Amino acid sequence: MAKQQTNPQPVDAAVTPRFGSIPTFMRLPHLKDPSQLDIALIGVPWDGGTTNRAGARHGPREIRNMSSFMRKVHHVSRIAPYELARVADLGDAPVNPIDLMDSLARIERFFAKVHAGGCIPLSAGGDHLITLPIFRAIAAKRPIGMIHVDAHSDTNDRYFGDNKYTHGTPFRRAVEEGLLDPRRVVQIGIRGSIYSADDMEFAESSGMRVIYMEEFARLGVEKVIKEARRVAGRGPTYISFDVDGLDPVYAPGTGTPEIGGLTTLEAQHLLRGLQGLDLIGGDVVEVSPPFDPSGNTALVGATVMFEILCLLADAVARRRKPPKKR
Amino acid sequence: MAKQQTNPQPVDAAVTPRFGSIPTFMRLPHLKDPSQLDIALIGVPWDGGTTNRAGARHGPREIRNMSSFMRKVHHVSRIAPYELARVADLGDAPVNPIDLMDSLARIERFFAKVHAGGCIPLSAGGDHLITLPIFRAIAAKRPIGMIHVDAHSDTNDRYFGDNKYTHGTPFRRAVEEGLLDPRRVVQIGIRGSIYSADDMEFAESSGMRVIYMEEFARLGVEKVIKEARRVAGRGPTYISFDVDGLDPVYAPGTGTPEIGGLTTLEAQHLLRGLQGLDLIGGDVVEVSPPFDPSGNTALVGATVMFEILCLLADAVARRRKPPKKR
Amino acid sequence: MAKQQTNPQPVDAAVTPRFGSIPTFMRLPHLKDPSQLDIALIGVPWDGGTTNRAGARHGPREIRNMSSFMRKVHHVSRIAPYELARVADLGDAPVNPIDLMDSLARIERFFAKVHAGGCIPLSAGGDHLITLPIFRAIAAKRPIGMIHVDAHSDTNDRYFGDNKYTHGTPFRRAVEEGLLDPRRVVQIGIRGSIYSADDMEFAESSGMRVIYMEEFARLGVEKVIKEARRVAGRGPTYISFDVDGLDPVYAPGTGTPEIGGLTTLEAQHLLRGLQGLDLIGGDVVEVSPPFDPSGNTALVGATVMFEILCLLADAVARRRKPPKKR
Amino acid sequence: MAKQQTNPQPVDAAVTPRFGSIPTFMRLPHLKDPSQLDIALIGVPWDGGTTNRAGARHGPREIRNMSSFMRKVHHVSRIAPYELARVADLGDAPVNPIDLMDSLARIERFFAKVHAGGCIPLSAGGDHLITLPIFRAIAAKRPIGMIHVDAHSDTNDRYFGDNKYTHGTPFRRAVEEGLLDPRRVVQIGIRGSIYSADDMEFAESSGMRVIYMEEFARLGVEKVIKEARRVAGRGPTYISFDVDGLDPVYAPGTGTPEIGGLTTLEAQHLLRGLQGLDLIGGDVVEVSPPFDPSGNTALVGATVMFEILCLLADAVARRRKPPKKR
Amino acid sequence: MAKQQTNPQPVDAAVTPRFGSIPTFMRLPHLKDPSQLDIALIGVPWDGGTTNRAGARHGPREIRNMSSFMRKVHHVSRIAPYELARVADLGDAPVNPIDLMDSLARIERFFAKVHAGGCIPLSAGGDHLITLPIFRAIAAKRPIGMIHVDAHSDTNDRYFGDNKYTHGTPFRRAVEEGLLDPRRVVQIGIRGSIYSADDMEFAESSGMRVIYMEEFARLGVEKVIKEARRVAGRGPTYISFDVDGLDPVYAPGTGTPEIGGLTTLEAQHLLRGLQGLDLIGGDVVEVSPPFDPSGNTALVGATVMFEILCLLADAVARRRKPPKKR
Amino acid sequence: MAKQQTNPQPVDAAVTPRFGSIPTFMRLPHLKDPSQLDIALIGVPWDGGTTNRAGARHGPREIRNMSSFMRKVHHVSRIAPYELARVADLGDAPVNPIDLMDSLARIERFFAKVHAGGCIPLSAGGDHLITLPIFRAIAAKRPIGMIHVDAHSDTNDRYFGDNKYTHGTPFRRAVEEGLLDPRRVVQIGIRGSIYSADDMEFAESSGMRVIYMEEFARLGVEKVIKEARRVAGRGPTYISFDVDGLDPVYAPGTGTPEIGGLTTLEAQHLLRGLQGLDLIGGDVVEVSPPFDPSGNTALVGATVMFEILCLLADAVARRRKPPKKR
Ligand SMILES: [Mn+2]
Ligand SMILES: [Mn+2]
Ligand SMILES: [Mn+2]
Ligand SMILES: [Mn+2]
Ligand SMILES: [Mn+2]
Ligand SMILES: [Mn+2]
Ligand SMILES: [Mn+2]
Ligand SMILES: [Mn+2]
Ligand SMILES: [Mn+2]
Ligand SMILES: [Mn+2]
Ligand SMILES: [Mn+2]
Ligand SMILES: [Mn+2]
Repeated sequence: MAKQQTNPQPVDAAVTPRFGSIPTFMRLPHLKDPSQLDIALIGVPWDGGTTNRAGARHGPREIRNMSSFMRKVHHVSRIAPYELARVADLGDAPVNPIDLMDSLARIERFFAKVHAGGCIPLSAGGDHLITLPIFRAIAAKRPIGMIHVDAHSDTNDRYFGDNKYTHGTPFRRAVEEGLLDPRRVVQIGIRGSIYSADDMEFAESSGMRVIYMEEFARLGVEKVIKEARRVAGRGPTYISFDVDGLDPVYAPGTGTPEIGGLTTLEAQHLLRGLQGLDLIGGDVVEVSPPFDPSGNTALVGATVMFEILCLLADAVARRRKPPKKR
Repeated sequence: MAKQQTNPQPVDAAVTPRFGSIPTFMRLPHLKDPSQLDIALIGVPWDGGTTNRAGARHGPREIRNMSSFMRKVHHVSRIAPYELARVADLGDAPVNPIDLMDSLARIERFFAKVHAGGCIPLSAGGDHLITLPIFRAIAAKRPIGMIHVDAHSDTNDRYFGDNKYTHGTPFRRAVEEGLLDPRRVVQIGIRGSIYSADDMEFAESSGMRVIYMEEFARLGVEKVIKEARRVAGRGPTYISFDVDGLDPVYAPGTGTPEIGGLTTLEAQHLLRGLQGLDLIGGDVVEVSPPFDPSGNTALVGATVMFEILCLLADAVARRRKPPKKR
Repeated sequence: MAKQQTNPQPVDAAVTPRFGSIPTFMRLPHLKDPSQLDIALIGVPWDGGTTNRAGARHGPREIRNMSSFMRKVHHVSRIAPYELARVADLGDAPVNPIDLMDSLARIERFFAKVHAGGCIPLSAGGDHLITLPIFRAIAAKRPIGMIHVDAHSDTNDRYFGDNKYTHGTPFRRAVEEGLLDPRRVVQIGIRGSIYSADDMEFAESSGMRVIYMEEFARLGVEKVIKEARRVAGRGPTYISFDVDGLDPVYAPGTGTPEIGGLTTLEAQHLLRGLQGLDLIGGDVVEVSPPFDPSGNTALVGATVMFEILCLLADAVARRRKPPKKR
Repeated sequence: MAKQQTNPQPVDAAVTPRFGSIPTFMRLPHLKDPSQLDIALIGVPWDGGTTNRAGARHGPREIRNMSSFMRKVHHVSRIAPYELARVADLGDAPVNPIDLMDSLARIERFFAKVHAGGCIPLSAGGDHLITLPIFRAIAAKRPIGMIHVDAHSDTNDRYFGDNKYTHGTPFRRAVEEGLLDPRRVVQIGIRGSIYSADDMEFAESSGMRVIYMEEFARLGVEKVIKEARRVAGRGPTYISFDVDGLDPVYAPGTGTPEIGGLTTLEAQHLLRGLQGLDLIGGDVVEVSPPFDPSGNTALVGATVMFEILCLLADAVARRRKPPKKR
Repeated sequence: MAKQQTNPQPVDAAVTPRFGSIPTFMRLPHLKDPSQLDIALIGVPWDGGTTNRAGARHGPREIRNMSSFMRKVHHVSRIAPYELARVADLGDAPVNPIDLMDSLARIERFFAKVHAGGCIPLSAGGDHLITLPIFRAIAAKRPIGMIHVDAHSDTNDRYFGDNKYTHGTPFRRAVEEGLLDPRRVVQIGIRGSIYSADDMEFAESSGMRVIYMEEFARLGVEKVIKEARRVAGRGPTYISFDVDGLDPVYAPGTGTPEIGGLTTLEAQHLLRGLQGLDLIGGDVVEVSPPFDPSGNTALVGATVMFEILCLLADAVARRRKPPKKR
Repeated sequence: MAKQQTNPQPVDAAVTPRFGSIPTFMRLPHLKDPSQLDIALIGVPWDGGTTNRAGARHGPREIRNMSSFMRKVHHVSRIAPYELARVADLGDAPVNPIDLMDSLARIERFFAKVHAGGCIPLSAGGDHLITLPIFRAIAAKRPIGMIHVDAHSDTNDRYFGDNKYTHGTPFRRAVEEGLLDPRRVVQIGIRGSIYSADDMEFAESSGMRVIYMEEFARLGVEKVIKEARRVAGRGPTYISFDVDGLDPVYAPGTGTPEIGGLTTLEAQHLLRGLQGLDLIGGDVVEVSPPFDPSGNTALVGATVMFEILCLLADAVARRRKPPKKR
């Protein structure tokens, strides 16, 4: 087990109030070397793949800001992530606000270094296209599985004729590139009007398990957890959480809201049910502060990030036999 | 069946992004002649019947704005309204912001022309009093039934002594004028403190079926659907959706919010359960943008409008034997 | 029974519209003498015990403002509080914005006079520390029970080393001072990450019944009501309602939001289930208008206050044998 | 001279903080009898004459709320209004939100009683049409003069064909009814695109002195003051201050904003220059809180009201020979 | 002279209130054929050149929305644009939200058609890069002059190493491509901290006349007008108005605000002083509604657009000898 | 002279966009050792001295956030602060949100270490009381002079009877404690209604030069600069900038707004005129983000901080003969 005292720790709220100090993720130290860490918290401030309302470029800052509300131990699972793993804020991946292809390359290179350092990434977007270069960095050797919470399947093909890369296409590209095993993908919360009756053709024919919002409501969270665990199986699995999977009252600050979504309590319950999977990373995407007057979306983003962090730290601890050298 | 290619179609989001172009309802063409249409989308920018917070006069513009998020096919029912029916934005009914009686007359005349054109209206208010002149235009020949979602019964009698017309009185007036058959009316979501113990006397003694919010929660949506269908029966039925029927977290932008209401997911489920009724029109009212900092109320208004549009288009298609001439 | 016509009555909304006139609680008269009242509505505009985001000092004004939406009779229980009891707005307790200990003393003195007048207080905070001086005023003679809705247990010990009094400590202090009987306390809605695994040690070892949010969701409201009634028993009981017990979509305007909380409908259902307990006072705390862009938190605060008022008026009426002199 | 100690006084901010207590105008007592007062502060929560964005019905409440920022002595003129005159909050004039003509009658009756009591009114609107019934109450015996700050002349004739009464017509009506002497009217800050080249025909041909914004900027405040004093002369004069006379950055919360207006500093300077005129009343109108996200418009409204109050108190004191009985 | 009655006219506000109907620019008809027009009002909803806060893609919709406040005649110059010229809303130029080079090509093609139709464009951005493809369409034959209001010179060279096209580079590119004559360019309002002491090197060495904000304040508007007219001279001149030239209190809704800027009154005065130049087009750019809580930026954008429209209509009328055929 | 390449430098905006990365002041490194610095940028997130609206505790975070807009060189003075001096973000001073006296002690100790390190502090508040412990740390050896921009003199004596320390009292305390030489103090922008005619007695009788807003407007900035320089003279001088000195349209996010204040352009002009004084520190206080919906107050705070930083860096460079060792 990691020695607690040597792991990076959040700023102590009983010394510096939670509204004070420079806002890093979870008030953790800002470090530069992923090889010293088990889990790296990373911002990807980029929304160049957004076809509708932009603003997710501001997501990492506001999620960092709101993550000061997080404390140190999960109140249900009692996971204490900073005892189980070395976690820090690794800063932001480099991006180019006006060049999509350049940004994809920069993001991939950054995450490749994180991956090479033996460190698991937990990222805050940015729009959903950022997951593609992350997959290129961490899934290059074998396709991975995914628990995907979203109102949208994000398996479109082209946009405006020629464009292959938007926040609506990452998972079709990931399957095509051999990064994602569609039979180990479950999509949860899908809903909203569609362009044509075959919008979901790729997702379904490739073997993804699509749980529409209506099926989610019918099944209830417990059965959805069971189904998600069945689909993900024992292989390496990534959690990708698009906040538009939630109902927009919980997450108004997003680019493509669809009414009639998950509650945060359901999402928390769902995530807690994933403990024990072979988790290798995760992200929270599409938090768009300019559309978030009360700040709740960023608070939700930070809390979901903490929920996933606990799962990842637990997975790190389970895998640690013998313990990682430091 | 309507020939798909000749029906009006929304602006294509893969040519003009959804935030672009002039915002008509559902991005449909703005046409002037109801006789060329099966269903007319109409704004009624008027809140002169409002006794508390005004602002619903701005509803049609913001609902139009947010309706750009709507796509073309319903993801559950798979209804494709623009294939089944000729639908367009007919603009706004004329109103007089400072003269209640003049406005009622102007609105009635406008809808009478729509009705005479053989076209079904789907309206965006405006406060709930607008439903009265709409009924005068479309229910003059026989009383109709109504599925009414609202926190309030809107069957008050007088206001400030003499006034017969406010957004709290339309359905008492409609019954008195023989436009509405109270035994074919179901009111869903009623709640909130009352002025006196007999506030609901008219609704109940006239035979309306009132499903208070508490009964709604107890029954669950499926049984409410069954009850609503039983009450509406086979006769011509109108859907009137006051957004304050929803909990104010979904629809803060409204004049008379009452906490403890429906979720949007429940409302969507409920509406989808109405397919197959003999539907002859509908409206979404009381969206008040000045009280809607995140814009969610207008998004909800637009989405509910799309849900009702799918029901109406389906009803139009069912009635089309033989097909309407063009 | 109180003679209805002589009890203070709200301003009539059919004479002065609800957005008009000077905003007192429930539009009741502003009176000064508690001995003429059965129930006093009191503001405590103070947030000096807040360790994170301040702003609850503005709570009483905005709750008063939104309480104009309240009418006169409860639509479910049919309780008519102004017929059953003499109720008025007693103004604000005096406070000192920059001196915590002075404020505690001023608040206690104010409530001691209310208590001496034979009048039950229903207060609008202010942060949760205000409940401690209220208890000192009304529970000096014997410990009381409490129904406590909150995301937090508020039974911490010290802050920043020495400080004994913050909005995180009132109920440990109240137990220590013999004001609160922990075995007659039920805490509902507790959740959120914690500082260490023994954060809840005091609450649990002292005998409080803690219903975490997860247990609440599992049990359902009806069973929680049963459990709350069992714990409170027949002794004198106070209702303390921290709006952060609700999910922050219902109450974003608060200092320490925790996602995944109660809905307002659940909270209303819960409160209605408390009718018949020996209720001796209540409060609604932590409404922080600067973080409430839509005003919904204040509306929720006002409505919860009305729900509790109905319970208190009912309790007053039950106790009135023979009737109180006037 | 009035005996200072017997005049009504604001709540003491060194006892009750300025964010506390029930918000009356200037924190003064809420009294009912105008005959006990020299100056009555009155709300007129009505915007039924508004042809564009409504919301001024909420003006009085928010102006009251923000008026808590006011202290007791003017820092430039050193006028201490509560020493010079008996001032209190007289509550709101009665209005009917859905009936224009009924509201005009109710407002007039209320102000007639104020006038009969020998008391000068200082009102907070409400839209600008409220000034007409006020004039009917206080200028019935002889036409008065007016200092009018506004972006608009408000001397239109008809609206929508027949309607004679809107917030764009009060001063034409007042001239026609012999209430206002146009040769003793100065309009300051007029600007904004117009419907046709003769929009200002009535104002100019009737003899009003119109100082467009451009002339205001050219002359500077000192010369405008001189001109205003020249026009008003020695007769009884009323100050009507429409907040849209200010640039909308100072007063975004208004129904008909026009960019390029006065600064608040200029407006304050201008008002201070009116000391010594025979002032008989005043109002601040068109404050519309739903369009005022920062609350600055209401703060401006409250401060302008305090500026005018000082002028009126000074005028009362000058006229008091011998002193009024009490 | 154009026959007044046949020119397109705005919706009549005395028939349809200004908050009603579908929001086109100035409430003019939405037409498709530029060859029928003298001046085309065009939206360019694109912000792909933005290196900081995005959101100007939403500018055209909100400017259209707020342009409903505009009336028909300029109150100072008395120019009546719809009498002098045929003006309409031509809709939006096509853009691709995720592809910068594709968007530049689409915008250029759209404006080339407008130009070929003999029609002058007045555009609403969008970010400032949109002016480059507009220049490619309208200045291909000879370099033009420009009156440029902005906090920034927008004459940077490269971004992130390679990128030539951002909203900080259009005017360097335009000079390089021979579209803009730098000796006939005046930049007004330049300010804000800089990256290095030679940031302004290109602008100054190429011969542009740069009037920093500090010089603007020192000279006063009249002398700035004189200087601007001297620089622009008699050749064809374009007006490009970046709203960040204004102080951010007037235009908070923009991506790169710099405090200490022009007032709207100064900007209006300045624009009015340009009457009589050989004006061939104009634009208002960088209005970013997600950062504009009060809507004032869009109102300013719409009003500035109306000011420029009056100048363009006047220029059209001056050039019309003999009159254009219709 | 300091070697430019070794001084701490901001994150490069051409590598990481300005909305990215963790927000430190001016995007400078976060360092811990003041002895390595010439100027330390410090947050003091505390508002426990606030008697009205709190929220300035959140000031440092939002000023940091907005300071990302700042670049590297002043565009008027051409001062390049990071070439002239070693500047970094030193984090936040420790504070105790619920204990005023403890906070004063903690802040003083923190600044004493900064001062002992030979480093000049430039702080972001927090409310204005924070300046008192800063003075105790840096002016213990001799009284200093002050340029004080504020709507308020902040020389009150007691509050609520006993309390000596509020944000209205720091400068009376500082004079009493011998930290501040009143004859070398100039207060600029003072205005707003007062509690009694002798509110300014201490300031004036102690010898402070008070320039009321009205005198400021009359004199113009140039003469105010001259007067400020005369008063400050050659001794060590501190700049204390309360954002409520500005008009609230520039700085709505503050606790005690007073209309009719300075423009930002005037304030910038004024500050630039102070170059060459013997400056030894400065602060920007009373930025209260919860009352700042557009974020402009924080942007103003950050920009004013940059203006003062340039003055301080210039002062450092002037004093460096011989240069400081490193
Ligand atoms: Mn997605
Ligand atoms: Mn999505
Ligand atoms: Mn209704
Ligand atoms: Mn309703
Ligand atoms: Mn609590
Ligand atoms: Mn709590
Ligand atoms: Mn007016
Ligand atoms: Mn006006
Ligand atoms: Mn620009
Ligand atoms: Mn610019
Ligand atoms: Mn101060
Ligand atoms: Mn101040």
